[in-house]
Amino acid sequence: MPIALLTDFGDKSNFVGVMKGVILKINPQAKLIDITHKVRFGSIKQASFLLYKSYSYFPKRTIFVVVVDPGVGSERKVLAVETKNYYFVGPDNGVLSWAVFEDGAEKIIEVKNKKYFLKNISFTFQGRDIFAPVAAYVSRGVKIEKLGKRIKQIKKIDFPEVKIKKDTLKGEILYIDSFGNLITNIKKDVFLNFVKDKKFVATLNGKKIGKLYNFYSQAEPGSPFFIEGSFSFLEISLQLTSAKEYFKAKEEDTVIIKKL
Amino acid sequence: MPIALLTDFGDKSNFVGVMKGVILKINPQAKLIDITHKVRFGSIKQASFLLYKSYSYFPKRTIFVVVVDPGVGSERKVLAVETKNYYFVGPDNGVLSWAVFEDGAEKIIEVKNKKYFLKNISFTFQGRDIFAPVAAYVSRGVKIEKLGKRIKQIKKIDFPEVKIKKDTLKGEILYIDSFGNLITNIKKDVFLNFVKDKKFVATLNGKKIGKLYNFYSQAEPGSPFFIEGSFSFLEISLQLTSAKEYFKAKEEDTVIIKKL
Amino acid sequence: MPIALLTDFGDKSNFVGVMKGVILKINPQAKLIDITHKVRFGSIKQASFLLYKSYSYFPKRTIFVVVVDPGVGSERKVLAVETKNYYFVGPDNGVLSWAVFEDGAEKIIEVKNKKYFLKNISFTFQGRDIFAPVAAYVSRGVKIEKLGKRIKQIKKIDFPEVKIKKDTLKGEILYIDSFGNLITNIKKDVFLNFVKDKKFVATLNGKKIGKLYNFYSQAEPGSPFFIEGSFSFLEISLQLTSAKEYFKAKEEDTVIIKKL
Repeated sequence: MPIALLTDFGDKSNFVGVMKGVILKINPQAKLIDITHKVRFGSIKQASFLLYKSYSYFPKRTIFVVVVDPGVGSERKVLAVETKNYYFVGPDNGVLSWAVFEDGAEKIIEVKNKKYFLKNISFTFQGRDIFAPVAAYVSRGVKIEKLGKRIKQIKKIDFPEVKIKKDTLKGEILYIDSFGNLITNIKKDVFLNFVKDKKFVATLNGKKIGKLYNFYSQAEPGSPFFIEGSFSFLEISLQLTSAKEYFKAKEEDTVIIKKL
Repeated sequence: MPIALLTDFGDKSNFVGVMKGVILKINPQAKLIDITHKVRFGSIKQASFLLYKSYSYFPKRTIFVVVVDPGVGSERKVLAVETKNYYFVGPDNGVLSWAVFEDGAEKIIEVKNKKYFLKNISFTFQGRDIFAPVAAYVSRGVKIEKLGKRIKQIKKIDFPEVKIKKDTLKGEILYIDSFGNLITNIKKDVFLNFVKDKKFVATLNGKKIGKLYNFYSQAEPGSPFFIEGSFSFLEISLQLTSAKEYFKAKEEDTVIIKKL
Repeated sequence: MPIALLTDFGDKSNFVGVMKGVILKINPQAKLIDITHKVRFGSIKQASFLLYKSYSYFPKRTIFVVVVDPGVGSERKVLAVETKNYYFVGPDNGVLSWAVFEDGAEKIIEVKNKKYFLKNISFTFQGRDIFAPVAAYVSRGVKIEKLGKRIKQIKKIDFPEVKIKKDTLKGEILYIDSFGNLITNIKKDVFLNFVKDKKFVATLNGKKIGKLYNFYSQAEPGSPFFIEGSFSFLEISLQLTSAKEYFKAKEEDTVIIKKL
C-alpha cells in the first residue's frame, strides 16, 4: 500500500525527509509518493482541492497523509478515515472532506492511541510525531479502529458552487497551477448549458476572456481563453504565458460571464 | 525496471504526484525516479539536453518518460522508442532525439493503442492520461510493438555545434545549472586543439572569461574561468557565485574565443 | 537499507536524479529518500545542522550521503563512517561531524578504493562519480573497510553554544526553516533556568520577542514569540507569518535575552 504525502512544508527544510524516515523505520517496505509539499502555507482550501483532484488516480488502499495544519498543537482532532477505496490521515480541519465525501466514508476514527505515535510528541511537528507513524502502522496492516475511538463526523468545508442569476454566471478561481493557469469552479457542461448558442462576455479582474478552445495550440498568443483542463473544470489560460500574471489573479477571485 | 521522469511541471501542483499514482495503479512494483520537473516551461531544447546528459547513468532498461509538450492535445505523435539499452516515452517534438540517436534506436513506435491509456483522455494533461500509463505497461513487460505501429523516424532537433573560423571560435550556452554555471557546447579537447600554446581572449556578453582550471578551488573569488564540468563540456564558472548573474547570461548566448 | 540524500544541488538540474540513477545501477533494490537538496549553496554549517536533526528518525543502518562540498576536486578527503546505528558518506569538511559525534563513530574510513567509484571521475561532480556509487556499494553489503584506509579523526566544526554572562544570555540563529521560523541554539530548559521567575526582555536585530508559548495558536497575530520547536530548540515565530521577514534575520544573527 503506497503512502502519498501532501503538505505545506516546502522543500527547503528536512521536514518531509524526516517524516519519510519515521515511516520507513516502522514499515521498511512502504512505498512513498509526494503529491506536493508546496500547498500555500496554511491553506486548507488549496490542500482540499489538490487532494480531491488527485486521490482517485492512486492505487486502491493508498494511504493519504495530509499535513496542512495551522491548528497544530491545539485541540483539533487527528483523523484516520477509511473510505470505500482509500485511507486518509490528517487533522480535522476540513482538509480531508472533499475527497472523503466523494469516495464515501466508511469508518471515521479520532486518533488517540499513543501506542502508534512517536514517544516524544512536539507541539509543532505532529507530521513527524503523529501523522507519519500512524500512516506507517496503517500501511503495515493495523486496523484503523485500533488507532482511537469511532466518531460520526468530520469537519466539512463547503465546495464553492457556481452562481447563476438570469443572464449572469459567477464562478471563482479555485486554484492556480504551476504554469499560472487559473482553474475555475465552472464545469464545461454547466458553461455550455448556460451559454447555449448565445454570445457571451467573460471577465476576470476587469479583463476579458475569449473563446472556449479544446487544446492550447488552437489559441493565439496573447489572447486569454477557456479550456477544459485536467482537473475537469474550465481553466483560464494563455498560450505559453501565465494567466496568473496577465490577470493579476489570486485564488477566490470572481469570474463573471454575461450572456448578450 | 525503473521509470525516470523528466517534465516542466514544476513542484507546486499535483501533476507529478498524480502521474506517479497512475503508474503505481498499473504497476505497484514500479521504481520511480525524478530527473527534474523544473525544465524551463515548454523548452524542448533544455529537456533534450538534460535527458541526453542523464540517461546513460541509469540502469539498463530504465524507461524514461519525458513530458515537455507544448503541442499537447494537437496532432503531434506520441512515441515509444526502444534503444540499445533503454526505453523512451514522450511526444514527437524532438525532445527524445539526442538521447535516442546516441544510444541507437532499435524500434520506434507511434503510440496509438488506447488499451494502454487511461479511459478518459484530456486535451491538456496527457502526461497523466497517456505517457504515465504507457510507461507503466512497458515496465510491466508489455512489448512496445503492442502500443501502436512501427514508424521509421522521430523528429530531430539539431545539436548546436561549435563554429571555428580562422582565429575565432564561437560556442553557445547550452544550459545553465542550479548553481548558475554556464554549460557551453565546447569540448575541452576542441578548446585545447584550437588554442594550442597561444594566448586567447574569451568573452561572453562583453565580459571576459579567464583561464581554464581543473577544479573550483584553483580559482580566485570574483574571476570567471573555464572548467571541464560534469556534463563533459567546458563550463563558465565563478567560485561560489553565480556566473549566470555575473554575465547576465541566458541559454543560447554566444561565447567568443579569439586567439591572439 | 535506505539511502538518504542531503545536498545543496537544488532541484532545477538533473544532478540528484543522476546520482539516483547511479545508485540504482549498482543496487536496484536501494530505497532512496531525499532529506533536502536546498541546503544554502556551500553552507557546511547548515547541512551539518539538518543532518544532525534528521538522522536519528531514520531506520537503523540507513546510509546518509551528504554532498555539500565547496572543496570538490581539491585535496579534501572522502569519508565513509560507521557509527553505532548508521553509515555516513560525505566530504571531510565537518559536515558529518555533529551527527557522527552524537551517534558515536565506530569506524572512520578515508575512501580511496577506485573499484567502488565510477570509471571516469570528474573534478566537479563527485556526488555522481564517488559518493553515490560508494553509498550504493555499502547498501549492497560492502564493508566500509574495503573502501579505503582506516583513519582516526574527521574534521570537526564547533557547535555554537549559548553564552551566559550575569543577567544576559546570548544565543544565535542556527537555522531558518521553510516557514521563516528562526531556530535558535537555546534549549528550553537552559532558557527557563536562566530566566526563572524574573521578567525578561529578548531582542533580535533591535526588535522584541515576547512570551514563550507552547503552541502556535496561543499567540496573537503580529506578535513574535518563543516556542519549543521540533528541532528541540527555542524558535522565534509569528503566527502564520515569516519571522525571517519580520526580523530581517539571517543565520548566525544574535539573540539577546536580558533579565530585568
